[in-house]
Amino acid sequence: MSRTRRRSPLPHRGRVPGATGPVLGRALRVLEAFSPDRPALRLSDVARRAGIPAATAHRLLREFCEWGALERDEVGIYRVGLRLWELGSLAPRGLGLRELALPFLEDLSQITRENVQLAVREGTEVVYIERIAGTGAVPVLTRVGGRFALTATGVGLVLLAHAPAEVQEDVLGRPIEGYTSETVTDPDRLRHMLADVRTHGFSISERQVTLDALSVGAPILDSRGQVVAAVSLVVRYGSASPHALAPLVMTSARAISRALSIL
Amino acid sequence: MSRTRRRSPLPHRGRVPGATGPVLGRALRVLEAFSPDRPALRLSDVARRAGIPAATAHRLLREFCEWGALERDEVGIYRVGLRLWELGSLAPRGLGLRELALPFLEDLSQITRENVQLAVREGTEVVYIERIAGTGAVPVLTRVGGRFALTATGVGLVLLAHAPAEVQEDVLGRPIEGYTSETVTDPDRLRHMLADVRTHGFSISERQVTLDALSVGAPILDSRGQVVAAVSLVVRYGSASPHALAPLVMTSARAISRALSIL
Repeated sequence: MSRTRRRSPLPHRGRVPGATGPVLGRALRVLEAFSPDRPALRLSDVARRAGIPAATAHRLLREFCEWGALERDEVGIYRVGLRLWELGSLAPRGLGLRELALPFLEDLSQITRENVQLAVREGTEVVYIERIAGTGAVPVLTRVGGRFALTATGVGLVLLAHAPAEVQEDVLGRPIEGYTSETVTDPDRLRHMLADVRTHGFSISERQVTLDALSVGAPILDSRGQVVAAVSLVVRYGSASPHALAPLVMTSARAISRALSIL
Repeated sequence: MSRTRRRSPLPHRGRVPGATGPVLGRALRVLEAFSPDRPALRLSDVARRAGIPAATAHRLLREFCEWGALERDEVGIYRVGLRLWELGSLAPRGLGLRELALPFLEDLSQITRENVQLAVREGTEVVYIERIAGTGAVPVLTRVGGRFALTATGVGLVLLAHAPAEVQEDVLGRPIEGYTSETVTDPDRLRHMLADVRTHGFSISERQVTLDALSVGAPILDSRGQVVAAVSLVVRYGSASPHALAPLVMTSARAISRALSIL
């Protein structure tokens, strides 16, 4: 489980100028045009979002469709193709981690009947790798493959607490987004919370994302002791004490870490 | 749920000559070098598998790493990166279908305690989108994101039975791979089996992939009545009658179809 750390302070959807040659750069901008908010696009949308002429966009879209990276339906709407999904399934930090962790996450979900989440850090954000919705559990906002801030969620606080110092300073040095009246946006208070996460081995996010939810997260370590992911339970606020949930989440996180390290 | 039909008779990992411009073509060949069998590659492996000079491979690998499509670890091994997994998660026929179907698949898995599989057709092969391993169920060979022949499995027989005629003739006109002494490799017998699948609404694959397993598959339809996926139960051979399993699988497949059509 290695990670390439991108030092650019730009948000990830932004292009890094000069990072790619002219042709590959334009091709990657075509792929970047597709996002969770905009998964289905017309030629004109792609050209505008990629900032390239329509003729160039048309040629690149055709090439991506022939390869299977994108798919075009009968009314001319382009979507991400199955072949890109297949290639993405080879990412060790995506499907590889999810396949290994899934039996443990299902156990935790069946025992608690609550929401279980698995996430990794990418730059200064959380990426959700798996999410199992509990029967009748509180609704959660996350989707698999989706991103969220590191500062507000159970998994995010774990991943930020164990991130390199420069990532922490980058995140805490910028304005911190509030989602509810309870979201902690004060950098000093967050620094104390992160120290608590490292000391106690779990995180608590109370009503920080939605007022009706509480999440408790714990770190997943690889064989070298590096934090590579985090697991959390998300429950209805008031239904359980975070300190009662923490041993459950930590036990599951350690079982996954153990499975990771004997790979 | 559209699909771009590639008419090339080449296996999907092969390059379609002239399908892409020179730069994008080389770049896509770099990505093609990564496969389920070979998910972690050195620069020299990539250059050899892509058929391009090492200097070109090096430049393209660097560009893909900067973008996040690939990741390079500290000893110089390249793997598929999280950003490609994120982009792949936008494929409607991949994670989109899987997210929608997962609650139904989990119900089927918990009720039967057997293996549940979800697959789509890509060209002349099955691609597995989800797989839930039953507690103590018979081991299965498939992995999420993996491919298999259309001719031998429960899901494959369903997808082949409802494929366009030219796909059926392409598959049945070529030598059919045998996996066990029970694999049906005779095209005429397979044609009869496919007709039975269309008549009865489910498929049966008995000991065709491994001698200890049996699978029963049923089709998932979109709002226009097109078969877009298949679901199956895989159980230990001899533990249950396929005709007892069929109503279960068909009920689950229809529930998923219903959920798909109200999207």
